Amino acid sequence: MTTTPAYEAVLKGGKYPAKAHAKRVAAYIRDKFPDNGDGAARHAVLYLESRATKLLEDNDEAEPFRQRRPFYYMTGCPLADAYFVYDLATEKSTLFIPPIDPESVIWSGLPVSAEEALAQWDVDEVKYVADVNPFLAARVASSSSAEKGEKKSIVFAMEGQVSDQTTFLEFDDTDFSLLKEAIDECRVVKSAYELALMAKANDVSSAAHRDVLTHVGKVANEQELEGRFVGHCMSKGLRNQAYHSIVASGRAAATLHYVKNDQPMDNKLNLLLDAGAEYNCYAADITRTFPISGKFSVESRAIYDIVLRMQLECISLLKEGVLWDDVHVHAHKVAIDGLHALGIFKGDKQAIFRDRTSVAFFPHGLGHYLGMDTHDTGGHANYADTDTMFRYLRVRGKLPAGSVITVEPGIYFCEFIIRPFLKDPAHSKYIDETVLDKYWDVGGVRIEDNVVITKTGCDNLTTAPKDPDEMLAIINGTN
Amino acid sequence: MTTTPAYEAVLKGGKYPAKAHAKRVAAYIRDKFPDNGDGAARHAVLYLESRATKLLEDNDEAEPFRQRRPFYYMTGCPLADAYFVYDLATEKSTLFIPPIDPESVIWSGLPVSAEEALAQWDVDEVKYVADVNPFLAARVASSSSAEKGEKKSIVFAMEGQVSDQTTFLEFDDTDFSLLKEAIDECRVVKSAYELALMAKANDVSSAAHRDVLTHVGKVANEQELEGRFVGHCMSKGLRNQAYHSIVASGRAAATLHYVKNDQPMDNKLNLLLDAGAEYNCYAADITRTFPISGKFSVESRAIYDIVLRMQLECISLLKEGVLWDDVHVHAHKVAIDGLHALGIFKGDKQAIFRDRTSVAFFPHGLGHYLGMDTHDTGGHANYADTDTMFRYLRVRGKLPAGSVITVEPGIYFCEFIIRPFLKDPAHSKYIDETVLDKYWDVGGVRIEDNVVITKTGCDNLTTAPKDPDEMLAIINGTN
Repeated sequence: MTTTPAYEAVLKGGKYPAKAHAKRVAAYIRDKFPDNGDGAARHAVLYLESRATKLLEDNDEAEPFRQRRPFYYMTGCPLADAYFVYDLATEKSTLFIPPIDPESVIWSGLPVSAEEALAQWDVDEVKYVADVNPFLAARVASSSSAEKGEKKSIVFAMEGQVSDQTTFLEFDDTDFSLLKEAIDECRVVKSAYELALMAKANDVSSAAHRDVLTHVGKVANEQELEGRFVGHCMSKGLRNQAYHSIVASGRAAATLHYVKNDQPMDNKLNLLLDAGAEYNCYAADITRTFPISGKFSVESRAIYDIVLRMQLECISLLKEGVLWDDVHVHAHKVAIDGLHALGIFKGDKQAIFRDRTSVAFFPHGLGHYLGMDTHDTGGHANYADTDTMFRYLRVRGKLPAGSVITVEPGIYFCEFIIRPFLKDPAHSKYIDETVLDKYWDVGGVRIEDNVVITKTGCDNLTTAPKDPDEMLAIINGTN
Repeated sequence: MTTTPAYEAVLKGGKYPAKAHAKRVAAYIRDKFPDNGDGAARHAVLYLESRATKLLEDNDEAEPFRQRRPFYYMTGCPLADAYFVYDLATEKSTLFIPPIDPESVIWSGLPVSAEEALAQWDVDEVKYVADVNPFLAARVASSSSAEKGEKKSIVFAMEGQVSDQTTFLEFDDTDFSLLKEAIDECRVVKSAYELALMAKANDVSSAAHRDVLTHVGKVANEQELEGRFVGHCMSKGLRNQAYHSIVASGRAAATLHYVKNDQPMDNKLNLLLDAGAEYNCYAADITRTFPISGKFSVESRAIYDIVLRMQLECISLLKEGVLWDDVHVHAHKVAIDGLHALGIFKGDKQAIFRDRTSVAFFPHGLGHYLGMDTHDTGGHANYADTDTMFRYLRVRGKLPAGSVITVEPGIYFCEFIIRPFLKDPAHSKYIDETVLDKYWDVGGVRIEDNVVITKTGCDNLTTAPKDPDEMLAIINGTN
């Protein structure tokens, strides 16, 4: 990586495309809410607030700041305590930033000025938050006089995200649901700039994964690897992790949401590392599994090879319009094939699939949309699905080009999950417990990449090594 | 540090002394609220809740968890969604933990059981949260029947920290202020176990400071040092920083609450690093300032020597009963002496002190209590003080033995703070601007240690190097 990555050119060449995002959101809203049946489009305004500064409970330190994603999508602005108005008639966007507080300048230096804000962020004008009520009132007044009261006015805002000081008194109507729906749906298909942000988050996180591989032979406790990973990302300017890392050694890797990350490691076993940083609000989400000693056990290598085949085959199926449910099914079929070849499954493979016995070993979904949230919007999961194979699948339906999705098959040997299957004759008949008993120490294997769906296939954003020989060479220092 | 530090013996030798803390809090409450004037002590119960699990807004990931300090003080229990009851009559403590949720076990493994909780934490009994209402009702009933209704019952709880499901219906009275006051005041004097926790937080954070010194010559951006510091602490099991680090190079060090930590560093200038991790809820808060190149400029070294003298002399004044306001005054006098000797101040030193001109260069307080909060409870600051020298002093009054306080003098060259003094004839007459102009590049120097007040002096918990020659030797690799 001595050459400048391609994403840097995109990031340096322009601003976060907030106006284009706002335009798409406005189009979605116009489409769903054209004119309320009176034959004339309403005079409509979108209103959003950024996250407010909030102190920790019983403490004078601020809470860790996480920008509100809908606000960021429409502005690209990372500031706390800011507002945003978009006028659907004029397509004009206005950002309202916090004023200069002389007391605060002494402690914190000068905040961003309106001029600087206009230069940095892709909006049409910048005002101060105190202006927001008169600004909103003027929008309605100009509309009413122009149209002689024929058009009704409406403001679209986010439920529970309007501060007390903002009044919508002048508006005929308010709507607190359609704006969230519109932004959630628009976020699924990423712009080139968003993809560049995600490529950077992925590139740095992939390098941190590689760094952990070089280091795993030198440490004794999971926490040392988490410190290594997080420290690496921070040192590259990625201050926040996208989610709570999972650094699980040995059988702990069978616990899907293992978060302790503080246990001594047995170097005969594997490590599962699920970790990714975020860059300017955009997430990476990467999992790798490897032997701590630099040498796989026979059982671990067998399971690793199955999971890698699940992942590579699923990735090869991806392109615009593919039904994600089908790809998930394919992963299960590869898992059944592989576990059958090892003798863990026995009997008819189609029956094993039909009876959902593979859910015992691969209990979660194949992947989820990724973006500003780790589990990004627009997936339409159905957690009430009575079909156990699909209950935890976080994306249902066809994948559009420009969406980013994680591909993260796994096979786990989790007693809490598998034991009930062994007690149920409908499933136990397919499982050879004697063979299975050799595999508990594998813990769990998951391999997770982040890919962009394209018209003809997909682009993999994740560069962390996953080829077993390459990983082992790095761990053993023979690469 | 190849020998086991003394604090490890204390930490391994016992539990966090929750019962002793509860007893002290109960005594405070009895003292302030003996019998409500009817001649008989009331039947009183203390009630606390831990922090509830909370999701990020618009997201399915949990917010970063920070245990409620008052709850931790009374239980030593780090769990979310737990409750605590202390009966003042029987002095019996009861912890209520969340139940086992079978769905959650599949994803997260088994939670702590009541038996494990009783073994780990210093309470008399452990029940499940569903038991709390009947348990409270039974306390009141047993009391009433025993006393034939002569005693009135009262529950003391934290304002805004009682969940809807907990009802105090059976109690004659509720009080939502005294419990917080009692815990806030009791927290000032630390137990031996608390001091051991703070010693460990300080030891690891001090080692991380030392690690940054060895590394500063190899990096180009502030963020690399923050990554190094945080990664080091995490790798030792200190997952959380006690506060947002300040990694300020050059003139940025003049901004007291600089938090960007993302600027390229000019290696002719200094770095100010204010960072400390927390261990089991207990904080370290350490600041060091050093030349990035390993060589001080003449001006920087002169200012460093003044600040170090301020700190060492103030530390030498400390012992039980000392008035913190006096120590703060001493720091100002040393600063005036030193800046006068450099020619930045001119005229009568007593007049400079009297007219508060040194506040231009040392605008904050000398230090604050430290404990579970970085700015710990019980300091009784007076932010409305019209005397500018004391307005930001976070501790006012005499220091008890067993309290832990930061000693953090500083001298800053901050334009936002100093320029108004230069424009005010009451102050400008004492400042030689020509001399001052040579010092702006110093940015700011602060040296901060954490000390325990004792009967005869104080114990310094902080082991990060501050002797200028020792720091330079580490930076230059000649130590």
